[in-house]
Amino acid sequence: MTYELGDNRYGKSQIRLVTVRRRGEHHDLRDLTVDVALEGDFAAAHVAGENARVIATDTMKNTVYALAKDHPVGPPEVFGLVVARYFAAAPQVSRAVVTLREHGWARIETPAGAAPDAFVRSGPATRLATVAVAGHGGETSIEAGVEDLTVLKTTKSGFVGFERDACTTLAETGDRIIATKGTATWAYGPPATARGFDFDAAHARALERLLTTFAEHVSPSVQTSIWIIATAILDADPAIEWVRMVLPNLHHWSVDLAPFGLENRGEVFVATSEPHGLIDATVKRRS
Amino acid sequence: MTYELGDNRYGKSQIRLVTVRRRGEHHDLRDLTVDVALEGDFAAAHVAGENARVIATDTMKNTVYALAKDHPVGPPEVFGLVVARYFAAAPQVSRAVVTLREHGWARIETPAGAAPDAFVRSGPATRLATVAVAGHGGETSIEAGVEDLTVLKTTKSGFVGFERDACTTLAETGDRIIATKGTATWAYGPPATARGFDFDAAHARALERLLTTFAEHVSPSVQTSIWIIATAILDADPAIEWVRMVLPNLHHWSVDLAPFGLENRGEVFVATSEPHGLIDATVKRRS
Amino acid sequence: MTYELGDNRYGKSQIRLVTVRRRGEHHDLRDLTVDVALEGDFAAAHVAGENARVIATDTMKNTVYALAKDHPVGPPEVFGLVVARYFAAAPQVSRAVVTLREHGWARIETPAGAAPDAFVRSGPATRLATVAVAGHGGETSIEAGVEDLTVLKTTKSGFVGFERDACTTLAETGDRIIATKGTATWAYGPPATARGFDFDAAHARALERLLTTFAEHVSPSVQTSIWIIATAILDADPAIEWVRMVLPNLHHWSVDLAPFGLENRGEVFVATSEPHGLIDATVKRRS
Amino acid sequence: MTYELGDNRYGKSQIRLVTVRRRGEHHDLRDLTVDVALEGDFAAAHVAGENARVIATDTMKNTVYALAKDHPVGPPEVFGLVVARYFAAAPQVSRAVVTLREHGWARIETPAGAAPDAFVRSGPATRLATVAVAGHGGETSIEAGVEDLTVLKTTKSGFVGFERDACTTLAETGDRIIATKGTATWAYGPPATARGFDFDAAHARALERLLTTFAEHVSPSVQTSIWIIATAILDADPAIEWVRMVLPNLHHWSVDLAPFGLENRGEVFVATSEPHGLIDATVKRRS
Repeated sequence: MTYELGDNRYGKSQIRLVTVRRRGEHHDLRDLTVDVALEGDFAAAHVAGENARVIATDTMKNTVYALAKDHPVGPPEVFGLVVARYFAAAPQVSRAVVTLREHGWARIETPAGAAPDAFVRSGPATRLATVAVAGHGGETSIEAGVEDLTVLKTTKSGFVGFERDACTTLAETGDRIIATKGTATWAYGPPATARGFDFDAAHARALERLLTTFAEHVSPSVQTSIWIIATAILDADPAIEWVRMVLPNLHHWSVDLAPFGLENRGEVFVATSEPHGLIDATVKRRS
Repeated sequence: MTYELGDNRYGKSQIRLVTVRRRGEHHDLRDLTVDVALEGDFAAAHVAGENARVIATDTMKNTVYALAKDHPVGPPEVFGLVVARYFAAAPQVSRAVVTLREHGWARIETPAGAAPDAFVRSGPATRLATVAVAGHGGETSIEAGVEDLTVLKTTKSGFVGFERDACTTLAETGDRIIATKGTATWAYGPPATARGFDFDAAHARALERLLTTFAEHVSPSVQTSIWIIATAILDADPAIEWVRMVLPNLHHWSVDLAPFGLENRGEVFVATSEPHGLIDATVKRRS
Repeated sequence: MTYELGDNRYGKSQIRLVTVRRRGEHHDLRDLTVDVALEGDFAAAHVAGENARVIATDTMKNTVYALAKDHPVGPPEVFGLVVARYFAAAPQVSRAVVTLREHGWARIETPAGAAPDAFVRSGPATRLATVAVAGHGGETSIEAGVEDLTVLKTTKSGFVGFERDACTTLAETGDRIIATKGTATWAYGPPATARGFDFDAAHARALERLLTTFAEHVSPSVQTSIWIIATAILDADPAIEWVRMVLPNLHHWSVDLAPFGLENRGEVFVATSEPHGLIDATVKRRS
Repeated sequence: MTYELGDNRYGKSQIRLVTVRRRGEHHDLRDLTVDVALEGDFAAAHVAGENARVIATDTMKNTVYALAKDHPVGPPEVFGLVVARYFAAAPQVSRAVVTLREHGWARIETPAGAAPDAFVRSGPATRLATVAVAGHGGETSIEAGVEDLTVLKTTKSGFVGFERDACTTLAETGDRIIATKGTATWAYGPPATARGFDFDAAHARALERLLTTFAEHVSPSVQTSIWIIATAILDADPAIEWVRMVLPNLHHWSVDLAPFGLENRGEVFVATSEPHGLIDATVKRRS
């Protein structure tokens, strides 16, 4: 044959799963979007139209719902492990990858206290988890993170000393707004795959470090901000092996009010979304 | 002439305005998307290609930024009044309508307290304000609200006793999830247009009533929920004349686990977004 | 009671309906998103939690699918009439409004000719139809149109002679790019509600007039463009009573290349989407 | 130091570039969204806040516009080569990656012929090109493709013989609708990087093969469809080294009309977008 099959994977995406755990009138809610993807011995399905080894993606969807009944959904990393291990046990599967997005809900605060059974969506940010389990007793990897995390600082950010060439018109600035709607991910090392690791606490700790460091640091560039924030996350949790941040630089340009006889002293800005800078870097423990 | 000009309006949309008010190191942030629309004597621009009375939409954008410098931006309703009154003063304008969407930011909480200058986007919900000012000393109307308010109750919601016909297959249920990503708007009466009305407090009060009532009430239908919530908002603020709610009913269907030998006791749901119910109703004070 | 119910409507939105009509191996495809909304005697459902007169939105969805079987789907206006008349016949309904968006598909062209059963999505534009039928033998209205129609002219567009005030910085220009991703709607008068009117032909004719006139005319402003295009559509079809166009002005700014020692002679532009002008006007037959 | 910098890249994304080439009254239009990303010696910018080697992303944007003036924009692959080679020539750059999305426009057809200067957006599909140039005389890679290609077949698609386990409820079917809104990419080998290769013709040929083969083949699974389509593309152009397709399986479920006393003979379907299958495979020449 002239051609051969290269990399391939398939699965079910956008499985919307909401679970309610009821302890009397107190209800716990988890709201997930789950993607399942399998790699393995699927060449015949591609090359020969032979489906005998194909687990239908409809079956994957059913399996996710059935597993959610059997394993009350707690941290997405834990449920991801359940699902990925289930599929990795099939003989034709060499690797099962489960990606989970958790949509955050906060209890509604009422004069009588936090509602036991009513919730409001919290924030545009989405919690991420990706669990990959290799078949035949192979390795497991667990990554976590947050996407669409939208933060802004009104000061303690500058950008000076960059290269100037024939196409450079940007002025240096010692004080600018910095804003992003970005993604941060990190990998948990072996301690986390042991039973009993508290993924919710680890996620909260990493997110707290991210936000506090973002708030407190002085930024000479988005690149340096990533380094400072990522190292703060690594400092706080030895279970985390590396941190990756992909941050659009959502420019907020100071509006030139001089044509209208006004002076803009850092008061009026236009927020833009395109074009935007895009800074992507990983910080890891030195091996 | 065979044809005539009917209703018409024009303006600038999606003016992105971010303002920072600096009191020493403590910064206040407002983040708005502003739309300006004008109605008036613009027939010649349409019918005759005569632009003499046309205020360019680019000029509208500039004006919004210049006014933001002169009138530090507080509640969107107040800034909307400034902008709408400015344009309504032009002789060719019969009505200026300014729509403002405020994107919420919360100060980042750090171990050292709330950050004075760093913020995180709060919630998917957007605060709305629409101010309309008629030219030549005419009337002013002020509407406020919230869009993309995403709430969910895991119980205290049912739907029974509805009409059954040949195409009805929906089972009655006394206990279901109810969820929406909806819009609520309300109108402020004359007290609110007087100087000194606290629009931020009024908005917070209406939103608190909305959320608390949503959490506490028992819902026999989305229609009744709107009535109950809207009357609670009206009860709490005599300045509000009417409340309108447009609520998609984002169905969360219980997953049938019987084929897998499992019983689903209100634990596992599939969240859907299409198709969805859409309930739109206004509740007003009896005149 | 202190409060009363104001305007209200409810229904099912985003009903996704795809129909295939099979004539041997030659298949016709229609792909619609249908919204149904009812107005009528629904006060008890709001005020008293009494659902007896409520047609469940789930029933509406079922009805649309059942009617699609009985009435093979042709022009969306015709199917909209079928659905709206069905619901308007219910005694509690005073008005049924059915909105249909048709997603366009073109047959795939192959060396062997147009495929009888394979299709590719054509264009971002969506065909619109809105049919409203009043209950108890009342009036019917039929509107049609197109949304997300994205067109651009590289010349024959200018903008001069507009008002200049303290906030005006825009330069006059006799030659600019004009572009929009807009909506046009129009109403069919009594001839169209008679059986046998060819809605597909009428829609194609209006769209052809819109595109050709857009291409050929000289535009002194978006406002004038709407007048010129709308009158061309009205000229071409006496069944059309009015035309409304809502056109964002998607600015394409000439890039200033002077800092790089280059002269931009109408060659290099930056396309923007926010802020944008928004021009909304209706042209109707003089009564 | 405890930590080290891992993979990193940065650049400017969403640079919107529209170019007009004027030959008398006949205008050619290219509409691109360009992303530039650089890899190289940027450790100091991350670790030490030292920007001396940083090419500002604002400068990248300016450069793209300046290069567009000097090199009239033809096929996106060619312009991508110009931009990538420019940045790869900087000493601190080890690799420059330029991704281009071309938004398609067709001339408006009028009774007088194709308009010389007026255009309508054609299709939701976007042409893709990604050019990567290594610094210091290194390798060049050129990939091309199409995203959001939306196609549907009403027959000649089935899915039988797949694995059945405890969670399988999907029925086998010999005749179903198959639909996708997918992405296809392919790599050009050495012949294409030589001057004079006609990238527009190669792209049109690959797209024609894709569409025709999709229309004509019988599909036993999405996996097999990818194999059949990809090998047809490879057959048609020896310059193409591999083809990758990432295809969501947008399920169109036959509506059960039995509860309404009707039989659905492949006439009425509900289109869904979530959950969806997702099939990702690469087919390459056997080495």
